[in-house]
Amino acid sequence: MNDSLPAVDPDVAATADDIAEMEIRGAATIADAAAEALARQAERSEAASPEVFRRQLRAAAKTLYETRPTAVSLPNALRYVLRGMSGETVSELRASTIARAEEFQVDLSQAQSKLGEIGSNRLRDGDVVMTHCHSTDALSCLEAAVEDGKEIEAIVKETRPRKQGHITARQLRELGVPVTLVVDNAARRYLDRADHVLVGADSIAADGSVINKIGTSGLAVNARERGVPVMVAAQTIKLHPDTMTGHTVEIEMRAEREVVSDEQRADIAGERADDGLVVENPAFDVTPPRYVDAIVTERGQFPPESIVILMRELFGETTGEPWAP
Amino acid sequence: MNDSLPAVDPDVAATADDIAEMEIRGAATIADAAAEALARQAERSEAASPEVFRRQLRAAAKTLYETRPTAVSLPNALRYVLRGMSGETVSELRASTIARAEEFQVDLSQAQSKLGEIGSNRLRDGDVVMTHCHSTDALSCLEAAVEDGKEIEAIVKETRPRKQGHITARQLRELGVPVTLVVDNAARRYLDRADHVLVGADSIAADGSVINKIGTSGLAVNARERGVPVMVAAQTIKLHPDTMTGHTVEIEMRAEREVVSDEQRADIAGERADDGLVVENPAFDVTPPRYVDAIVTERGQFPPESIVILMRELFGETTGEPWAP
Amino acid sequence: MNDSLPAVDPDVAATADDIAEMEIRGAATIADAAAEALARQAERSEAASPEVFRRQLRAAAKTLYETRPTAVSLPNALRYVLRGMSGETVSELRASTIARAEEFQVDLSQAQSKLGEIGSNRLRDGDVVMTHCHSTDALSCLEAAVEDGKEIEAIVKETRPRKQGHITARQLRELGVPVTLVVDNAARRYLDRADHVLVGADSIAADGSVINKIGTSGLAVNARERGVPVMVAAQTIKLHPDTMTGHTVEIEMRAEREVVSDEQRADIAGERADDGLVVENPAFDVTPPRYVDAIVTERGQFPPESIVILMRELFGETTGEPWAP
Amino acid sequence: MNDSLPAVDPDVAATADDIAEMEIRGAATIADAAAEALARQAERSEAASPEVFRRQLRAAAKTLYETRPTAVSLPNALRYVLRGMSGETVSELRASTIARAEEFQVDLSQAQSKLGEIGSNRLRDGDVVMTHCHSTDALSCLEAAVEDGKEIEAIVKETRPRKQGHITARQLRELGVPVTLVVDNAARRYLDRADHVLVGADSIAADGSVINKIGTSGLAVNARERGVPVMVAAQTIKLHPDTMTGHTVEIEMRAEREVVSDEQRADIAGERADDGLVVENPAFDVTPPRYVDAIVTERGQFPPESIVILMRELFGETTGEPWAP
Amino acid sequence: MNDSLPAVDPDVAATADDIAEMEIRGAATIADAAAEALARQAERSEAASPEVFRRQLRAAAKTLYETRPTAVSLPNALRYVLRGMSGETVSELRASTIARAEEFQVDLSQAQSKLGEIGSNRLRDGDVVMTHCHSTDALSCLEAAVEDGKEIEAIVKETRPRKQGHITARQLRELGVPVTLVVDNAARRYLDRADHVLVGADSIAADGSVINKIGTSGLAVNARERGVPVMVAAQTIKLHPDTMTGHTVEIEMRAEREVVSDEQRADIAGERADDGLVVENPAFDVTPPRYVDAIVTERGQFPPESIVILMRELFGETTGEPWAP
Amino acid sequence: MNDSLPAVDPDVAATADDIAEMEIRGAATIADAAAEALARQAERSEAASPEVFRRQLRAAAKTLYETRPTAVSLPNALRYVLRGMSGETVSELRASTIARAEEFQVDLSQAQSKLGEIGSNRLRDGDVVMTHCHSTDALSCLEAAVEDGKEIEAIVKETRPRKQGHITARQLRELGVPVTLVVDNAARRYLDRADHVLVGADSIAADGSVINKIGTSGLAVNARERGVPVMVAAQTIKLHPDTMTGHTVEIEMRAEREVVSDEQRADIAGERADDGLVVENPAFDVTPPRYVDAIVTERGQFPPESIVILMRELFGETTGEPWAP
Repeated sequence: MNDSLPAVDPDVAATADDIAEMEIRGAATIADAAAEALARQAERSEAASPEVFRRQLRAAAKTLYETRPTAVSLPNALRYVLRGMSGETVSELRASTIARAEEFQVDLSQAQSKLGEIGSNRLRDGDVVMTHCHSTDALSCLEAAVEDGKEIEAIVKETRPRKQGHITARQLRELGVPVTLVVDNAARRYLDRADHVLVGADSIAADGSVINKIGTSGLAVNARERGVPVMVAAQTIKLHPDTMTGHTVEIEMRAEREVVSDEQRADIAGERADDGLVVENPAFDVTPPRYVDAIVTERGQFPPESIVILMRELFGETTGEPWAP
Repeated sequence: MNDSLPAVDPDVAATADDIAEMEIRGAATIADAAAEALARQAERSEAASPEVFRRQLRAAAKTLYETRPTAVSLPNALRYVLRGMSGETVSELRASTIARAEEFQVDLSQAQSKLGEIGSNRLRDGDVVMTHCHSTDALSCLEAAVEDGKEIEAIVKETRPRKQGHITARQLRELGVPVTLVVDNAARRYLDRADHVLVGADSIAADGSVINKIGTSGLAVNARERGVPVMVAAQTIKLHPDTMTGHTVEIEMRAEREVVSDEQRADIAGERADDGLVVENPAFDVTPPRYVDAIVTERGQFPPESIVILMRELFGETTGEPWAP
Repeated sequence: MNDSLPAVDPDVAATADDIAEMEIRGAATIADAAAEALARQAERSEAASPEVFRRQLRAAAKTLYETRPTAVSLPNALRYVLRGMSGETVSELRASTIARAEEFQVDLSQAQSKLGEIGSNRLRDGDVVMTHCHSTDALSCLEAAVEDGKEIEAIVKETRPRKQGHITARQLRELGVPVTLVVDNAARRYLDRADHVLVGADSIAADGSVINKIGTSGLAVNARERGVPVMVAAQTIKLHPDTMTGHTVEIEMRAEREVVSDEQRADIAGERADDGLVVENPAFDVTPPRYVDAIVTERGQFPPESIVILMRELFGETTGEPWAP
Repeated sequence: MNDSLPAVDPDVAATADDIAEMEIRGAATIADAAAEALARQAERSEAASPEVFRRQLRAAAKTLYETRPTAVSLPNALRYVLRGMSGETVSELRASTIARAEEFQVDLSQAQSKLGEIGSNRLRDGDVVMTHCHSTDALSCLEAAVEDGKEIEAIVKETRPRKQGHITARQLRELGVPVTLVVDNAARRYLDRADHVLVGADSIAADGSVINKIGTSGLAVNARERGVPVMVAAQTIKLHPDTMTGHTVEIEMRAEREVVSDEQRADIAGERADDGLVVENPAFDVTPPRYVDAIVTERGQFPPESIVILMRELFGETTGEPWAP
Repeated sequence: MNDSLPAVDPDVAATADDIAEMEIRGAATIADAAAEALARQAERSEAASPEVFRRQLRAAAKTLYETRPTAVSLPNALRYVLRGMSGETVSELRASTIARAEEFQVDLSQAQSKLGEIGSNRLRDGDVVMTHCHSTDALSCLEAAVEDGKEIEAIVKETRPRKQGHITARQLRELGVPVTLVVDNAARRYLDRADHVLVGADSIAADGSVINKIGTSGLAVNARERGVPVMVAAQTIKLHPDTMTGHTVEIEMRAEREVVSDEQRADIAGERADDGLVVENPAFDVTPPRYVDAIVTERGQFPPESIVILMRELFGETTGEPWAP
Repeated sequence: MNDSLPAVDPDVAATADDIAEMEIRGAATIADAAAEALARQAERSEAASPEVFRRQLRAAAKTLYETRPTAVSLPNALRYVLRGMSGETVSELRASTIARAEEFQVDLSQAQSKLGEIGSNRLRDGDVVMTHCHSTDALSCLEAAVEDGKEIEAIVKETRPRKQGHITARQLRELGVPVTLVVDNAARRYLDRADHVLVGADSIAADGSVINKIGTSGLAVNARERGVPVMVAAQTIKLHPDTMTGHTVEIEMRAEREVVSDEQRADIAGERADDGLVVENPAFDVTPPRYVDAIVTERGQFPPESIVILMRELFGETTGEPWAP
């Protein structure tokens, strides 16, 4: 039946292309563009009936969604806007959809700074924060704390294989935060000096699990063992509504060369057939909710076990695709 | 009073020099050379009285010890040999000392293969073993298992900063063991596939703590959380008798450049005064005994909580220096 | 005041009798019949005023409830339907009540298969699932997984005293699932092979506790210790709203003969007065929420700590009896 | 902009004074007075427009709030009432505000007894309950249980430094409950006899933490270790909405003399400059949600991880001050 | 070289036959017979030289050992006696061997009652003890407690599949101990009433693990979670010296029919090829030392982590076969 | 048979009287006096045969022991000296006994300072140590650390009911150690600042349990939860050999008035019959070995699980009374 969905507005198609070709990228940027595209579709619709209008919007959503089916912020934007499409006439539908898209965009544009303030409130003057990987949501908490005049120190894990810890370290130095950089293996030793572990999230599941950069779960287990609370900073576009229906998040396996160079591989494998040497490079891992003390979003902080309620509030209970009628 | 200790045999002095200049290195090689030197001293002694003989031997021990006061195998060799020096005449003292040194050397030469067999016995056909860093003691267990015809697979952590996991991976491939190489951050994810964690030790303390390559303790905590037993392979020369008197083991801090290159540092620090960026690079960490299931030595396997008893048996209760009367 | 509730429709009375005499049984069947009966009462009401209509419906609910006051699905059906009774005229009340009952029945009829799909989504190809007792909700997850083409294996605990594991094993074999049947005592040993523990529930309390077949809580504790996640499959009719007001669930004590035959008792007690031998046979136990990773319902999966929110959404906050005004 | 808020009704001002001077005190009494004052303001308003009315009410709320900015029940009352202020005319606004204030007051007047019934439902005949400090909410649970005819015994911790356990003990004796009074240090030993730990709360944070009398968290950790469930009794006016935005609760440090008398200090400090002796006397501590089994409120019991949802329901998501527009 | 061991005394051969044919059985009975046989061999030896005598004794030990290589008490008896064989003449060797065998036999005959007294000392008047399976060592503790006049109650797990709990229940009833018999699944629920868990052991490993009837480890994990100490009663002949060299204990898999009857299997498997249904019936499992509070032997009680020291004291460090020179 | 033991030397009798009347008190002082008395008995013996001598010494031991059967240092002194009584003539027996007593006394006189040095070695410059109660053994560790030039800070729990923390605080202030004094309830909050928990011991059991001032076990559980290691300082005269045979240590119940004054009791009990108010005041509690990281003695530090081995070494395996033949 979806086959019969009508053609979409050229602007929507253009946005879809840009997302597909990664001209538009980054969780927030994609979400913003998708909401904008739905508003444009609504604006320009010349639908003769509410039903036609709805089908146009659903078609637009489907087109957008299919560009990057694994990016969690994209369907969230679509779901959020379509949930606000209401009215009994085309005119009412148009108005409500545009208003909803705008609301989404405004909220999104303020989300990181709101989240940062909330996260900052958990930190006290003099606190030492251990970070893993690089997350603008997490950094916004530290930035807000510094702006509030708190003295904060950071212990930054380098985060192999890609060492995004270096980016975190650099940005923290730009904020004037004293940084101790350590290899990932040193985390447990330095947890004795830390007052918080602070990380971002790639996405958050309905069972309260946090999907984040590989190494997060091992760090969280050690933080609990050392008595250090773990705080996850994540805008609500990182919530993963598909997981409400039990779906697990597929963990991306990245290129071997991020871990070993060709020479290193050759050195290890020697002249042997090298099929006995496998280099595995998962991008993320899953931290169970019991090792996370709080998830900080722009809508407040939540224990991970209750985040599913926020997910339902924002994106609905429905388990179908975002454009499902 | 030590000032009055007599001069030592030239061969002892030569050995001491070689140890000091790292011509002789490696825990076992140093221990062997030290025992040999004491035997030489005993052999060549022209002492006129037992007392003089004893002072000569103590002098030799002191000379040897002072070359590398932090190498745990060196004082262990000295303690072990001097504990066997007994008799009422110079002749008896000489014989007993030489015999004791020989016993030490023979035991030492067989220790790793004995330990390997014992460790191998803990492994079953089809087991998957996760390793950290590179340890010949740990490898000897896997080698013995392979020789016993067991199919073993390995998950090898690369072990930043120095990536000694590559050496482990290469040696395991030489043994024909299938290897999955992962970054340290991936450990918790791969523990679900592992039947054992197997590591070596830099030294072992009287309270059952295991001092080993940085990252060991974080791995052990995760292994317990995942239900995977942790096995430490360590010859008895790694036991650290000083810790019986409460001494803690000083953790070596290694060069920053093992962690970041100069360019990486410059990139992170930018044009800021870089004293806000500290790179810390501890070589080892301390794993509490409650996260270790067994310590495998050439004298059998022990729960970490009972290793102090073996330590007392081999090296005595005395808390003084190895050459103390 | 309840005394003055009006007489109920004969069909309602008949349904009540059938429930009381267990002609109608099984959690879902009872719930469906109760909703149907309320719809019938609404349909046939000749009430002269909204107030009279409401009292008739409350009377019907009370009559139905009192047949099996401990069956949790029965009051849930009543609460759900009565919460949907709204309107300002008898006609509106009738329509809304009938619609609500129908909604409940439709949802109920689809609940198990929806739940099965959601539960199936948590399972991956190749997973090994350990089961306890027999639960059609739990089985529906496995069935859906098999239908999705996943290879699933099962480790089935026999579940003394009544060995409902045999039923589970048979139904899994009918689905073509390879089954390893073990005694309950062997559970911890086999958890090392399991990727999930999957159980049903007799009921679920507001504090997140899961009341299920005796042995569930001991299994869940061991699963946590072994690092195996625990998943509870339970339709929302298993939620127990009375527990929102702190009520604990009474655990049924079943007949001694399920545990020992008369001969076995005689053999144990010998010629002694047998009052020193007590055989206790509780039907259920209580698993605290901290040992459960997810509760899978037809409305999505939830951490146990947030299930109270779903309970309030479906059945209201009120702490009174289902027919309370 | 707040500067331009209009003057408040004299009665509101009088109430504010009474709160400031602690003529009105106690969490519930303050909350009741604040709601009453807002109703009075609404009643007497002669506002010419809805906008003026709203500003008057906000001014009243601000005036009241600023008397005791750390008393959590006060802003809760204000938030609750203002959230119910709705309508398009002054007359509608007045009516809705007065009705909302009344609703709040009625609920408040019944809260403790409702909470007591709910808490009592968690207790069984013959249970032994360990208490810490003195809390009328906690006592109401025990009182309800006694009224329900249950035999309850209490183990009462004395609760240094102020020994409020004596008050608890006296009130329990008045109820006829057998009391075993112990020092705080004896808690772990007596937990083996206890079926529940029951405490009140000073306030409850959005992350599920319980702020309560110093010693609560140490008791809760031991209760978990001993397998004894922990129940917190707290009316919803104890929920702390500021914590939704990450704010942590400032812990009051009380006078040194509650801990040592001047003579005791002199005896300890001797003739030394006494700046080496610090006596710290924090009034409260923070118990993480993972050590709490249930929070019992007048609106039902909740796992601590879901209390944030109730907080949002009652007091809104807004993160601004209670009188924010 | 073993080939050249001399023939053994006919009495030794006869004892070996009786052990092989299970005329002699039970851990203690076998150990006693083996010691007796070695004494007989010593007594009757007409060896011309100490060397010949030693080889005769080793031959006897080997003959005896090979009858039941998996019975741990048998090699322990052999090791113990041969370790006491000392002297420089045949006559001295004979005397020392006979004396040692006698010492072993005397100790063995008193071991269970000594162990019982020691175990009884851990129990207090009024204690409730939960048992698993049937162990005469464990029962001897309860018997001694009863004889000491202590009131003891027992909660007896039936211990599927063979229900040896019935034997325990009967013997406890004979002692007048009140018994509550429960299915294994009910253990966690009844742990709240228990002051101790008391079990025997099939054998005890050098790493402190306790090998005992299947279900012991799951019970021990739950006992720790409920705060109930676990006590293992085991004579020193249950210590397993082979495990000092890392050997793991092979777990016997018993007949499927102990778990399901043929009809039950048929009922489960239906008309399907039954290779999809496997019934596994392991006899024992392994409890890690961290879940055991004390091992009670006739030589005193020990934390499981120190039992290896007792093992070395009694049976020596040697890792060879019992008859190794 | 003990009836026939001979009369003891008047000096022994006098010492016994002094111990009984608490003229001689304190664990070390009693032990010293007891050893001295045995030496005196040996010195003055005019025994005609070794057998008579032995019986005289046993009689002396029995006389001394019976003065204070619960003081653990007393039987330890007796056991230690009598274990050294050896020889085949009266003269040899006398000499060996006197020498052994002297050895015991010399060791004892040095024990606390040796222990202090060992304990000090576990502390680092800048460490913060939390203490409970007052223990000269624990203080000797801190004193040695201060003498070694380490900066140490202390958090001192007041230790209700008798507030021995005040003594600890005073003595630490005399050493110049900065002290933060807190009520016992504040311990968990302040553990976040502590690097060590350091306590003494009343006695130490063979299963590794530490019997110490009430509150120790609760503190230890919290210290583990907060990641702070726990160190127990105890001379070997605190080891409790009776516990090798399973004996548990009787916990002294002290006077109610240490907890409540008469007025406080009256205030709590009111006019009610006061048998419903029980004030329990146990002097000690039992900390399981799993919460203790090291026991520091004058013979070195030990994991609690291996202390039984030291106990056997010093006081023998025998389970009889100290004067048993």
